[in-house]
Amino acid sequence: MGEEIKEKLLKLVNDPVPTSGSKVTIVGVGQVGMACAFSILTQHVASEIALVDVAQDKLTGEMMDLQHGLTFLSNVRVQASTDYSITAGSKICILTAGARQIEGESRLDLVQRNVNIFKCIIPKLIEYSPDTILIVVSNPVDVLTYAAWKLSGLPKYKVIGSGTNLDSSRFRFLMSEKLNIAPSSCHGWIIGEHGDSSVPVWSGVNVAGVRLADLNSDIGMENDPEDWIRIHKEVVESAYNIIKLKGYTSWAIGISVSVLCNAILKNQHCVYAVSTYVKGYHGIEQDVFLSLPCVLGENGVNSVVLQNLSKQERIQLQRSASTLGSVQEGVAW
Amino acid sequence: MGEEIKEKLLKLVNDPVPTSGSKVTIVGVGQVGMACAFSILTQHVASEIALVDVAQDKLTGEMMDLQHGLTFLSNVRVQASTDYSITAGSKICILTAGARQIEGESRLDLVQRNVNIFKCIIPKLIEYSPDTILIVVSNPVDVLTYAAWKLSGLPKYKVIGSGTNLDSSRFRFLMSEKLNIAPSSCHGWIIGEHGDSSVPVWSGVNVAGVRLADLNSDIGMENDPEDWIRIHKEVVESAYNIIKLKGYTSWAIGISVSVLCNAILKNQHCVYAVSTYVKGYHGIEQDVFLSLPCVLGENGVNSVVLQNLSKQERIQLQRSASTLGSVQEGVAW
Amino acid sequence: MGEEIKEKLLKLVNDPVPTSGSKVTIVGVGQVGMACAFSILTQHVASEIALVDVAQDKLTGEMMDLQHGLTFLSNVRVQASTDYSITAGSKICILTAGARQIEGESRLDLVQRNVNIFKCIIPKLIEYSPDTILIVVSNPVDVLTYAAWKLSGLPKYKVIGSGTNLDSSRFRFLMSEKLNIAPSSCHGWIIGEHGDSSVPVWSGVNVAGVRLADLNSDIGMENDPEDWIRIHKEVVESAYNIIKLKGYTSWAIGISVSVLCNAILKNQHCVYAVSTYVKGYHGIEQDVFLSLPCVLGENGVNSVVLQNLSKQERIQLQRSASTLGSVQEGVAW
Amino acid sequence: MGEEIKEKLLKLVNDPVPTSGSKVTIVGVGQVGMACAFSILTQHVASEIALVDVAQDKLTGEMMDLQHGLTFLSNVRVQASTDYSITAGSKICILTAGARQIEGESRLDLVQRNVNIFKCIIPKLIEYSPDTILIVVSNPVDVLTYAAWKLSGLPKYKVIGSGTNLDSSRFRFLMSEKLNIAPSSCHGWIIGEHGDSSVPVWSGVNVAGVRLADLNSDIGMENDPEDWIRIHKEVVESAYNIIKLKGYTSWAIGISVSVLCNAILKNQHCVYAVSTYVKGYHGIEQDVFLSLPCVLGENGVNSVVLQNLSKQERIQLQRSASTLGSVQEGVAW
Repeated sequence: MGEEIKEKLLKLVNDPVPTSGSKVTIVGVGQVGMACAFSILTQHVASEIALVDVAQDKLTGEMMDLQHGLTFLSNVRVQASTDYSITAGSKICILTAGARQIEGESRLDLVQRNVNIFKCIIPKLIEYSPDTILIVVSNPVDVLTYAAWKLSGLPKYKVIGSGTNLDSSRFRFLMSEKLNIAPSSCHGWIIGEHGDSSVPVWSGVNVAGVRLADLNSDIGMENDPEDWIRIHKEVVESAYNIIKLKGYTSWAIGISVSVLCNAILKNQHCVYAVSTYVKGYHGIEQDVFLSLPCVLGENGVNSVVLQNLSKQERIQLQRSASTLGSVQEGVAW
Repeated sequence: MGEEIKEKLLKLVNDPVPTSGSKVTIVGVGQVGMACAFSILTQHVASEIALVDVAQDKLTGEMMDLQHGLTFLSNVRVQASTDYSITAGSKICILTAGARQIEGESRLDLVQRNVNIFKCIIPKLIEYSPDTILIVVSNPVDVLTYAAWKLSGLPKYKVIGSGTNLDSSRFRFLMSEKLNIAPSSCHGWIIGEHGDSSVPVWSGVNVAGVRLADLNSDIGMENDPEDWIRIHKEVVESAYNIIKLKGYTSWAIGISVSVLCNAILKNQHCVYAVSTYVKGYHGIEQDVFLSLPCVLGENGVNSVVLQNLSKQERIQLQRSASTLGSVQEGVAW
Repeated sequence: MGEEIKEKLLKLVNDPVPTSGSKVTIVGVGQVGMACAFSILTQHVASEIALVDVAQDKLTGEMMDLQHGLTFLSNVRVQASTDYSITAGSKICILTAGARQIEGESRLDLVQRNVNIFKCIIPKLIEYSPDTILIVVSNPVDVLTYAAWKLSGLPKYKVIGSGTNLDSSRFRFLMSEKLNIAPSSCHGWIIGEHGDSSVPVWSGVNVAGVRLADLNSDIGMENDPEDWIRIHKEVVESAYNIIKLKGYTSWAIGISVSVLCNAILKNQHCVYAVSTYVKGYHGIEQDVFLSLPCVLGENGVNSVVLQNLSKQERIQLQRSASTLGSVQEGVAW
Repeated sequence: MGEEIKEKLLKLVNDPVPTSGSKVTIVGVGQVGMACAFSILTQHVASEIALVDVAQDKLTGEMMDLQHGLTFLSNVRVQASTDYSITAGSKICILTAGARQIEGESRLDLVQRNVNIFKCIIPKLIEYSPDTILIVVSNPVDVLTYAAWKLSGLPKYKVIGSGTNLDSSRFRFLMSEKLNIAPSSCHGWIIGEHGDSSVPVWSGVNVAGVRLADLNSDIGMENDPEDWIRIHKEVVESAYNIIKLKGYTSWAIGISVSVLCNAILKNQHCVYAVSTYVKGYHGIEQDVFLSLPCVLGENGVNSVVLQNLSKQERIQLQRSASTLGSVQEGVAW
């Protein structure tokens, strides 16, 4: 009973596959996780999305709200559960879960709390999708990407942090405003630690291959009369400003992550600045993850692009690496 | 100063257009308005988006957050202001602003409050975009679409309510779950008043042209052993359930509205169930707006599809029309 | 030598995958095969395309011409060779190769010639992609889909003919011209044998669930004063007319096939009319392939939609089945 | 009669617009024109396409073949006629018509023949779409872009030649093959005269902002042991090779032109290398069109990017300009 129309209407020939080939799991259905999910959905990046969180009600509500729009999209399968079994067979797992810094809390304390959360999440993801690629979005993203790598047992190239892909996108947008050119035609790379200590590589900033540094040799310096460094400062302040204005950031990080997923699932070999294992690059000696331009393919990071950094840029990277190394040492694994 | 690189890099040949041809304004940057904006952006529906609201901070925060993702999208121009001059030249204005029902408030009181809000908004939209098409999303959507029409002075076919396009999408998704077929291949139309009194037209529910009513003549009846009416009940309860679970609905309405914008801006002549002026249809005698299947083109509603309704369905529509008519009479215009 | 820049620029972290997850092979690079390839490419359906043909020069030229546009598309990998090893790991293989009818040649002779061609092609495809799905486009498509099934040893649900998906699309376009509504909002199904003997299922023709047969009970009859049957006649004549006018058909079949590929690769569960194994449906007793509405998923045909056909429609289908059965018996396998 | 179902089904509310806002005309339905049309269609670039040619049969056949696929695309309106009235209101007109060089014919004779063809076409285009933007694709493209400008009376920034956008795309693809990185992440600009005399700007060739010239100072030189100049030579030979192998080029130029249309119709402000009026740039003194990186917006070329060229590159450009100038002087206008 309850199946009669179905039986009269359809003759089953072959059971549908339980899980399709381009499945993405998103852990955490806060504003960031949902912006990732919606961006993946509306841009047809995956054929299956699994949402996981501890908040059952929110989870169900978000799932229903996404499902109700599927009529107007290609038929992505959207599931949600507190039980990780629904994540089985994911090509990519996106981690957006994590605690936010509370007043008076040290950075290390925050890291420890989030590492503890990851200790619960990651083994379950790996259990159900042993060959998955992890994309870490939770902050502080570089330490947590390291944590995800350490806790997952995955090879380095399969653990990626969303890193400075967003910072680079912000930089290019601000550059586009200054020049009145589409941001996709404005080129510039922010590398290193996501956030305050990020490093803009001024030597690579260009439009149509014209290096802006060749037009203004003071670009990026404090004494530059055109004050281009202001753009990088705005990038650094972006998250703070948006959080102050609207309470959180969501849309840009959502698009940024869906772009990474697309590059991986479609094996595009595009170059994006993501957090990767950087020991051995630019004089870095610690076991840390920082953003560098990476070639992304179906099995993760294929190559790292070796930029010719200035001494100052190398020092900044090494300083970040050293700070991250210390933080990681302080964590109870 | 501050422009030197630009001058060295670019030779201006011709001033860019101040406003491009497929501009959409969104009034209200709450969860619904922003889901509309993000959906329009990620699906490349418009080339320009203007956000308007009274909350300056939220507005700026949302604008920045959208802008920071533009590097990965085609270069849509995103502006935001409390000043309506930024909306000039909009092809479509989407109204998501409005008060929510407060406890103890009568429906009429809520309508009056929202009509008062529309009295502020609509003249300014028309001032800057006298030929625009209005899409009303704020609730109660049917009365407010009437209000938008009355207050705007626009011809009837240029004022559209998002109406039961979302209800229909929900219905088709639930049908797809029952049949394990893509929702885009499950066909069904919910018409009439958006929400509790919506009317599912069971005679038109079909897959590949096979009417489900021909397979089960009790479909949609209370005594149907397969309980298909449950699907419509779930549609009606959807908004309530999602609000209970996550606090508001956003994603599905966002997609649903971006689909309407796409049909209009690309002059597609697709049929969607939207709230339109219905006096004269199905025995309706009031000056009211209710959802019927409409053919949408670049200048709004081109035609209404005349469904062959059952007596019961006609009565429900007429009852909704009568209720809406009374509410509208009680409003101080 | 020749690799120095690459070595200085890139640090290899992990070898790229040799073959990505959504690979499509196209056999035959004539106008049809290339329209399929270009449609798949421009609509981002696959991440890898392999072209196979016997004409080495044409093959190389077409490959280069596609590759030179990849900068503006997502980075699909395009390969071409007369050697089937490049097809390894294909999710879908599209067969467009085949001889055209020559003057004075009987239909059976043509079938035999094309079966002979398939005898060369199909074992090689299966050798390199044993789990692939075959989409047969070569004509006469229904017999050749049977041939592909028989020669491949694949399960029935993994061998699909492009069938009347194109006829249905043509029907809906012509209907849209008559009604001035988007073809995607005009619904109608052509089933059975692709071409002259195709069967329009008039009972299912509808707009927004409104059956045209309910508005004009003579629809599809010879005596219909509105002459709707003319639309089906035009569908039947389409291929002949276009071949007379431009020499071949290409664009519509290309889009039609890319839509099928998309439904399969993204596991959409959409319903399309494709040629499938129909013994046991609508009183058909032969081991033949004819088009019926099918639910397509990642592993091929999941279900067949059972339409309630008129006696006349059943007879036409059975007659086609009988003709095809005879042709197949005459073939030397 | 013949309209009864339509009258019963639809209540007309408002006449559809005769011409929608993003209309593109394509003159010439040879392989290039049709690849442009199909690319525009499958990538949803325009909402209306008009095809014009002198060959009525071919025209009708191509129109029908495109129309029959519209069910699976957004509902673009496709028209075709030998009568230019169907082009009315076009935002963009693409010129692909023109004679091919015949054996023994001098280049100047070919130009003259094509200028004569343009004398027939262009006044009619301008008559029906006085504000249109012209994109010239016919070869020799730079001279013919000049001719289109001269014959149209349009401002310079509204007449664009497809120019070296394709050469640049080919260059980036070949670079991507050498580096195993997506062509969209490989940056390089070919400027100047489309074809044999095109100029690769080696100083701008980069990946992630890393200039290849900084890794190999001999890049682009004849004595470069890595022979990168081979890539440019292959670009130059591409058209010849593909024509030898398959008879004509079509797909890449089709994509390349649809990308330009998209940038214009969506007012993207992206930078592409297109043929533009270059007197005054890089020491050029003739009234000629050559490709330089241009910022494209809704009203045509907004700005030209000023690259810092080497002496050799400037000389090559000036030499092309001088040759073109002489050819243009020899033409009977």
